[in-house]
Amino acid sequence: MKHYLKMGAATAISCLVAIPANAIEPEVNHAENIAKFGEVWVPEDRAIDQKLAELEAQHGKKPNIIYVLTDDVGWGQLGSYGGGKVVGTPTDNLDQMAAEGMKLLSAYAEPSCTPTRLALLTGRHPPRTGVDVVLWPGMTAGLVDSEYTIAELLSDAGYKTAMWGKWHVGDVLDEHLPHNQGFDFAQYSPYNGAVWSWVDDADYYQKHEVLPGNSPNFLDVPQTYFDDYGYEKHYIWEGTKGNEAVKVKEANMEAYQDIDTRRTDEIVDYIADNAEGEEPFFVYFASDAHNAVSANNSEFRHNKHVDQTNNMAVTLVEHDHNMGRILQALEDNGIEENTLVVWISDNGPMYGHSPNMGYSHLRGGKGDVYEGGIRVPSIVYWPGMVEAGQDPIDMLHVTDLYTTAARVAGATDLIKNDRVTDGIDQTALFLNGEDAGRRFSMIHYSGSEIGAVRMNSTMKVHFKGMQGGLPVMETYNIVRDAGERDANAIYRHLHWTAPFLQMVAKHQAQIEKFPNTKLDPATGAELTD
Amino acid sequence: MKHYLKMGAATAISCLVAIPANAIEPEVNHAENIAKFGEVWVPEDRAIDQKLAELEAQHGKKPNIIYVLTDDVGWGQLGSYGGGKVVGTPTDNLDQMAAEGMKLLSAYAEPSCTPTRLALLTGRHPPRTGVDVVLWPGMTAGLVDSEYTIAELLSDAGYKTAMWGKWHVGDVLDEHLPHNQGFDFAQYSPYNGAVWSWVDDADYYQKHEVLPGNSPNFLDVPQTYFDDYGYEKHYIWEGTKGNEAVKVKEANMEAYQDIDTRRTDEIVDYIADNAEGEEPFFVYFASDAHNAVSANNSEFRHNKHVDQTNNMAVTLVEHDHNMGRILQALEDNGIEENTLVVWISDNGPMYGHSPNMGYSHLRGGKGDVYEGGIRVPSIVYWPGMVEAGQDPIDMLHVTDLYTTAARVAGATDLIKNDRVTDGIDQTALFLNGEDAGRRFSMIHYSGSEIGAVRMNSTMKVHFKGMQGGLPVMETYNIVRDAGERDANAIYRHLHWTAPFLQMVAKHQAQIEKFPNTKLDPATGAELTD
Repeated sequence: MKHYLKMGAATAISCLVAIPANAIEPEVNHAENIAKFGEVWVPEDRAIDQKLAELEAQHGKKPNIIYVLTDDVGWGQLGSYGGGKVVGTPTDNLDQMAAEGMKLLSAYAEPSCTPTRLALLTGRHPPRTGVDVVLWPGMTAGLVDSEYTIAELLSDAGYKTAMWGKWHVGDVLDEHLPHNQGFDFAQYSPYNGAVWSWVDDADYYQKHEVLPGNSPNFLDVPQTYFDDYGYEKHYIWEGTKGNEAVKVKEANMEAYQDIDTRRTDEIVDYIADNAEGEEPFFVYFASDAHNAVSANNSEFRHNKHVDQTNNMAVTLVEHDHNMGRILQALEDNGIEENTLVVWISDNGPMYGHSPNMGYSHLRGGKGDVYEGGIRVPSIVYWPGMVEAGQDPIDMLHVTDLYTTAARVAGATDLIKNDRVTDGIDQTALFLNGEDAGRRFSMIHYSGSEIGAVRMNSTMKVHFKGMQGGLPVMETYNIVRDAGERDANAIYRHLHWTAPFLQMVAKHQAQIEKFPNTKLDPATGAELTD
Repeated sequence: MKHYLKMGAATAISCLVAIPANAIEPEVNHAENIAKFGEVWVPEDRAIDQKLAELEAQHGKKPNIIYVLTDDVGWGQLGSYGGGKVVGTPTDNLDQMAAEGMKLLSAYAEPSCTPTRLALLTGRHPPRTGVDVVLWPGMTAGLVDSEYTIAELLSDAGYKTAMWGKWHVGDVLDEHLPHNQGFDFAQYSPYNGAVWSWVDDADYYQKHEVLPGNSPNFLDVPQTYFDDYGYEKHYIWEGTKGNEAVKVKEANMEAYQDIDTRRTDEIVDYIADNAEGEEPFFVYFASDAHNAVSANNSEFRHNKHVDQTNNMAVTLVEHDHNMGRILQALEDNGIEENTLVVWISDNGPMYGHSPNMGYSHLRGGKGDVYEGGIRVPSIVYWPGMVEAGQDPIDMLHVTDLYTTAARVAGATDLIKNDRVTDGIDQTALFLNGEDAGRRFSMIHYSGSEIGAVRMNSTMKVHFKGMQGGLPVMETYNIVRDAGERDANAIYRHLHWTAPFLQMVAKHQAQIEKFPNTKLDPATGAELTD
């Protein structure tokens, strides 16, 4: 227990300034915000520490943490977000989770798969880590050893750590792999294990059914692409901390059938096995539920409300069912009040996978910094700690989940002070609800460039380069026009220019001070000066 | 009571075939549907008649009916539809109404103001009535005497009838006016009483505040237009059945300030005055809450979640509050279980009124037969009769409210049999919930032409004329792509062509048999052969 006491004490001090006392300003405007709101935040943080201390006294350990990252689910697809069965994706379990927890209406991810995973794992915008693109087979880049992942932080804070699902932050170097990045156990697909399956999937359509809206467009993709992608080489792996990873099975059609359900089986067992343990646990479930093949023979295809022409709709309903099972397992083991669960999507829909795709009412999809690419559904669930039925509009960025986990674990002082950690501690938002959020601006990276900046609940600017010495910007009132339709509004919002450019300048000055990690393109190894 | 007994008996018979025994097929495919589902519908209708008879025995009269038609509110604007405070329009009362009642996810109106009002009042697609456009001042067209309105039908069924709000289905001939179309009492604006107010409104912006997104574009409109529109001539009127209408007040800035609230005051009084009456009542509240001026000094502007730059957001929140007051009045007077309340929008948002406008996630707005123009939020509320918390995806068209009111009033046999009534009785949907809906296709008129046709929950076709002897059609899977983005999908859905063209041919043959009403352009009088 000595270890925990140290953490607790450290937290109490660090929280007086709402961010780790020893850490770098996590976000360009956060220092000003601390100065502005410190009088509110300091007593608020004392009360939060008190509440967390009482919970720890009650359960004899820190809270368990379960982060579920789902894949390519669009804003508005869930019933609780105005979609559900009317768009062919009934999500009864996630809707129930939202009703019993907190539905975030302004949650943001990075615009694509690998970047969002890096952001959640490191609490940093991906370019800081040296990786700013989606990784494809053969690419050497990845999550390097010098990054301090949420799994490493929580391990150092005394947590057992485990992950299941799609890793996709590097698999060429040993240091890239989850069991070398802080996870005691990891059952993982090294990268996206689904793309090759589209071929078989389209073939499945032809064999079985052709329904309105069904376009077997993947048949047009040359087989060589999928060979290059590793159709033969690809495996599902298992790794344990300090040991070599072992192949579980080849990632073929059979391996991916109902994969979300079978990974959930293991997570449910893990919850049961660790509910009574002396140490709290951290589970990272990176659901691969967007791969179409797993739906081919799925029982969830028989749900009358599921869009039968969209295998991703089937897999989302399968995942929705599995989320219900995970929450049920927490209740069955009597630990639901000592477990923080956050469910979030990694980016918007990938329309290129039509007809097997998510959908967003908003403009753009995966890869875009328009809202359709980055505004994602997200639900926070923690009975007794997070009040039921909330739907705050406070902004949350996926990097915040890193810093918030550290706070909940009483380990904010472990956050490294030799780098920028972009995540903001949002424990106050989770525990105190709307208006307690601590993020008032966001940088939206598009690859290595800043694609857009959000200034507050209303103002968003897209940067489109320079023209005639002037910055070309698309400006939106994001409350008025969440769909970002009114692109010819620059003249109207010209007075926005200065504050946005100042914010970007500050962000870039911060990078000058703490340069982004650089990798050797040939080997993927970190370059040091 | 003799009168009611006669009605009751007639209903029991007529309902054996799910539509009035003596009426014309209301919708092109309905006869086939009756043949197909009769075995289900006949016993279902017997049970519904039994349930309505028990309610009548309990209360000693038929149920009261309140229809609220709101103005230019877009799909997704309400919190319960995935909007609410995150888009600047918190709708707590309507969300509560949805939670305690039935939220319709596939409710459809005509694409604009006058047509939807005609459709609700007559149960017929507007071109059948001889009016297929939005009426502007000076136009002679209107609702002619030969139409049998919902107010006339319910009057003949023994109801007291009253309306408040925006009439906008004609005001040149006496026969056009609400108190000559079946309403015992009507306090009404003859047509849209709001447009002229934009001028003052834009002026208000300049005087008071200029916020991001605020564009005082109405200053560009020449004053002459507003004079022509009747800024000087326009009044709010009151009419009682059989008497000349009297001017209540000139429709100036003062008259429109908080008009929704002051009309609600009168409705709340009317409910109290008639709760104990021997006759049931029908209230038609055509809310004018989209007129910006009423928000200028509104207390509802001070709601922190309201988009301050959008006066229509302010008026929607005002109307939301007033809907709560109306439901409270039903409860206070102990008649909530004997009153059917339906709330519905008349069409999608009118972006031309930016910055004072509604918003839809869907493609298009007011005037379009894309979903953004015609798919509208709609809530059914009837404690004890309509189960709480439902959100069926069954289709409902605004004309159905006419036929459903007749059924609830036990007066389906009053529906005229010398014309086409497009509305389908949806009492089964209201009382039995999802899958009990009786509409499986829809004609979407665009003015006098068929703009689009909905075949079932999935298939929608837009007609874009002929090219090279082929019909040019946009086809959508409306579940997969509610936003109607994939406009180049004709090849994919070519096999849809035949059934859609057959449906249109049947619809047109029906018009040959029962020709649309024709009006004299000079006088507005109905032309008879």
